[in-house]
Amino acid sequence: MDYKKIDKKDIDFLISVCGKERVLVDDEINEDFSHDELAGIKRYPDVLVEVRSTEEVSKIMKYAYENNIPVTPRGQGTGLVGGAVALHGGIMINLSTMNRILELDEENLTVTVEPGVLLMEISKFVEEHDLFYPPDPGEKSATIGGNINTNAGGMRAVKYGVTRDYIRGLEVVLPNGEVIEVGGKVVKNSSGYSLKDLFVGSEGTLGIVTKAVLRLLPLPKKAISLLIPFPNLEMAIETVPRIIKSKAIPTAVEYMVRDVILASEEFLGKKFPDNSADAYLLLTFDGNSKEEIENAYEKVAHICLDAGALDVLISNTEERQESIWSARGAFLEAIKASTTEMDECDVVVPRNRVAEFVKFTNDLQKEFDIRIRSFGHAGDGNLHVYVLKDDLSEEEWKEKLSGVFKAMYDKAEELGGQVSGEHGIGFAKKPYLEKSLGNLRMQLLKNIKQSFDPKNILNPGKVC
Amino acid sequence: MDYKKIDKKDIDFLISVCGKERVLVDDEINEDFSHDELAGIKRYPDVLVEVRSTEEVSKIMKYAYENNIPVTPRGQGTGLVGGAVALHGGIMINLSTMNRILELDEENLTVTVEPGVLLMEISKFVEEHDLFYPPDPGEKSATIGGNINTNAGGMRAVKYGVTRDYIRGLEVVLPNGEVIEVGGKVVKNSSGYSLKDLFVGSEGTLGIVTKAVLRLLPLPKKAISLLIPFPNLEMAIETVPRIIKSKAIPTAVEYMVRDVILASEEFLGKKFPDNSADAYLLLTFDGNSKEEIENAYEKVAHICLDAGALDVLISNTEERQESIWSARGAFLEAIKASTTEMDECDVVVPRNRVAEFVKFTNDLQKEFDIRIRSFGHAGDGNLHVYVLKDDLSEEEWKEKLSGVFKAMYDKAEELGGQVSGEHGIGFAKKPYLEKSLGNLRMQLLKNIKQSFDPKNILNPGKVC
Repeated sequence: MDYKKIDKKDIDFLISVCGKERVLVDDEINEDFSHDELAGIKRYPDVLVEVRSTEEVSKIMKYAYENNIPVTPRGQGTGLVGGAVALHGGIMINLSTMNRILELDEENLTVTVEPGVLLMEISKFVEEHDLFYPPDPGEKSATIGGNINTNAGGMRAVKYGVTRDYIRGLEVVLPNGEVIEVGGKVVKNSSGYSLKDLFVGSEGTLGIVTKAVLRLLPLPKKAISLLIPFPNLEMAIETVPRIIKSKAIPTAVEYMVRDVILASEEFLGKKFPDNSADAYLLLTFDGNSKEEIENAYEKVAHICLDAGALDVLISNTEERQESIWSARGAFLEAIKASTTEMDECDVVVPRNRVAEFVKFTNDLQKEFDIRIRSFGHAGDGNLHVYVLKDDLSEEEWKEKLSGVFKAMYDKAEELGGQVSGEHGIGFAKKPYLEKSLGNLRMQLLKNIKQSFDPKNILNPGKVC
Repeated sequence: MDYKKIDKKDIDFLISVCGKERVLVDDEINEDFSHDELAGIKRYPDVLVEVRSTEEVSKIMKYAYENNIPVTPRGQGTGLVGGAVALHGGIMINLSTMNRILELDEENLTVTVEPGVLLMEISKFVEEHDLFYPPDPGEKSATIGGNINTNAGGMRAVKYGVTRDYIRGLEVVLPNGEVIEVGGKVVKNSSGYSLKDLFVGSEGTLGIVTKAVLRLLPLPKKAISLLIPFPNLEMAIETVPRIIKSKAIPTAVEYMVRDVILASEEFLGKKFPDNSADAYLLLTFDGNSKEEIENAYEKVAHICLDAGALDVLISNTEERQESIWSARGAFLEAIKASTTEMDECDVVVPRNRVAEFVKFTNDLQKEFDIRIRSFGHAGDGNLHVYVLKDDLSEEEWKEKLSGVFKAMYDKAEELGGQVSGEHGIGFAKKPYLEKSLGNLRMQLLKNIKQSFDPKNILNPGKVC
C-alpha cells in the first residue's frame, strides 16, 4: 500500500481543524498509543488527534481520503488483537475525547452517547435512572465505541445477548468524510440492507462511529449470585448444558479454576469468598422479586448438587457479590501479571462443546509443555484461553505459541465454533479468520471493505 | 437489463436437476405465483421449480449465473411489497417445498429448519418441547425463509425483539451457486463483518437462504392479555409511552379501532369480546408465575385507568385469549375484504411518536377524502396503515394514493421513522426508500448488491 507520508502541511491542516493543543506529534504522543493491551505489535502513529465533534472527524477523514493518508480510530486502547494500532502510521484519531452522554429518552428507552463514553459511565448513568444497559464485558473502562466495533459480548450474553442487540442507531463518518445515520430510535427496521449491523463489529474498518443510540431495559430489581465449587473443571462445565436444558434462564454462567482465583487474590490483595475447590461455576440470576429469583435458582442449585457440586454458596448481599465479581473482572490482569508475556484465544463454541474444548486445552499444556490458563463464559460458549510465556526463550515461545494456537483454532472449527466470540480479529487473528472462513467468505468481506473504503485508508491491515 | 430468455434447453436442464413433475411451465403455473398478497403488480415467471435440497438450489443458481437468467426465490407469497414477484420473468424457485424441521438441540436451545417451514409449524413444534420461538408476525402461514428475508417483527417485538435477534446461523446459496454458512450455533460472534446480519432482511437479493439455525427460549409458563377500551384512539395511544416509561415490560402492545374490529367480526363470523368503545389497547404479559404477571400488569392497568381508559378486561383463559388474538390476526384480511383494492404503509416511528402519526393519517382521510384504516404495534412504533380504494375510479385512486403515501412517508421521516418496520421494500416501496435514505446510503446498498451479485440475476428490481 502506497500511502502519503505525513508532512508539515498535513499537521497544519489538522491544527486548523482541532487547534494546536489537540494535535500531538513525536514525543508528545504517549507510549500507550503505540500498542493495545495485548496484541504484541507496536507502532506509533505519525500524528495523534484528539477530536471533539463529528464535524472534526468528518473534516479529517475528507482530508485523509483526498490525500491518501491512513487513519486509525482509537478509544481507550483496551483491545487485545491490535485493532487500534496504527500499523501503517499516519493519523490516529483519539475518540475517547468525544465522551458526552447526549440524551436519555425514557419514553423510547434509549440513551444517546458519543463513542468515547466509558462502559462504566453508561451503567452508572442509566442505573441512576432505574434503567439497564445489559452488555457487560469484563473491561469496564473500555469505550462504548470500542464495544460497538468489536460487538463485545460480556457476562450477561446468556440471558440478554450482545452489544449488537442493544444498538438502535449509529452516526458514522465514512472513509471519504461523509456523515450518515443508520437505524434510529426505532424498535423494528426492514428498510434495506442493515448497514447498522454491518458497522457493528467492523472494528473501525468501514466507518468511524461518532454517535450511538443504545437500547435500554428497565433495571431488574434484584440479582443474586451463586458460587458453586466442583471437584474439578470438567464436572463443573459439563453441568452447564444441563442447566440450559432445564429451561432456567441465568443472567450469567462463568467458570473459573483455583489457579486463576489465587492469581486474582494476589493481584487485588483481596480474598475471594472461597478458594478450596479446584473449579467453580459462578451464576447470576436477576428479576423483579425475591420469589421469582428463588424459583429460578433453586432448580439450578439441585442440578449442580446432583452433578457432583461440593456446595452452593449464595451471595445475596451487595458486598459479597461485589467481592466475587471484582475478582472475576480482574482475571485477565491477574493472569497477565503472573507471567512475562501472553497471548489470547477468544474462540466461541456451541455451549454444549465447552467442556470438550477446555479438556483439549488442558491436554495441550502437557503436549507442548507450556502453561495455559482459561476462564470464560460457560453459559454462552465464549472462552478466554491464555497461553503464557513464563521463562521460555523468544524462539521457543514463538514456536510453541504458534503450535498451540493452530491446534486450538482447528479444534474450535471442528466443534462448530468461530474464531472470535467478542474480542474481534484486528490484525493478530487475521490468519485464523482466513483459515476459518475460507476464500469464498473472505472474498465477500474484502468486497464489502472495498465498496466502503476503495482507497483502503481506514484502519488498514485489520480484519481482511 | 439484458437477460437470456428461457428456452427448451434451460427447461431440460432444470428437469435434469429436479425431475419433470417439479418443473412447471405455462398453464401448469398457478395464478398465485404471478403476484403476492398486495403489491398490485403481476408477472408470471417463465418457469417455476419446486426445490427439495440445497444442492438443487445451488445447481440452478450456478446455471442461471452462467447463462444470465434472472431468478426469483419465493416462499408462501404472503409478502405485501412485491418482493417475491418475478419482475423479469425467468426462473422462480419455490422454496416452500424445502420444509423439513431438521434438528432440535435442547442443549444449545436451537432448532434448525429449512426455509419453507411455516411459522405456525415452528411454534407448534417447539412449544411441544416446552420451548419458545418469540417472533410472532400476524401471518402465521408465512415461511420462516420469508420472515428471515424481511426481518419480520410481529407482536412480541416490544419484549423479545425481531427475527434478526433469533437467527444464530444461516446456510446461503450465493448468486453464483456457491454455498456458504454464516454464524452457527454460537451465542456470540465477532469474527469479521456479520454476513449473517446482512442476509437477514435482504429480501432474497444477496443469496438464497436454504437452512436456518434459530435461537429458542424456554417457554414462559403463563400469559395474560388485557383488552383496554378507551373513548378514542388518541387517548389510547398516548398512554403507551407512559406504560414504557413506567418500566413495565409487556410482551405486546397493540392498538385497534372499532371499525377494524367490526370488519374482523364480519370476516370471521365471530364476536370480539367487546366492541362498545371507539378504540382499544391490547396488551399481553408473560412470565413464569401468576404473581409475577399480576405484579407487572396491575401497575399498567392503573396507568391506563388514570389516562382515561373505560375499563380493563382481563383475559386469563386460553379461549378468551384465542378469540381476541384470532381477531387481531384477521385484521389485514378483514380490511382487504371490506374494499375493492388497497395499499399499505408499514412505517415505523419512535414509540412516543405513534400518536402523532396516527392523528396525521386520520387528518389525511379528510384532506384526501379517502378511507384509511390502521392497526398496529403501538408498543414498538410499527404501524400498518391501509389506504382503501372503495369505489374510486382507477385514475382518482392512483392520484389520491400517491398523495397520501407521499404525505405519510414524509411525516414518518420527520418523526425520525423508517420506511418499513417489517414488511420490507420489495419493489413497491423502492421510491420511498430512495427518498428516505438519500443518495449516499442508497449507493452503499447498491455497492453491496453489486459485490454479492455482479450480474444482478438474483431477485432483480427489488430493494435497490
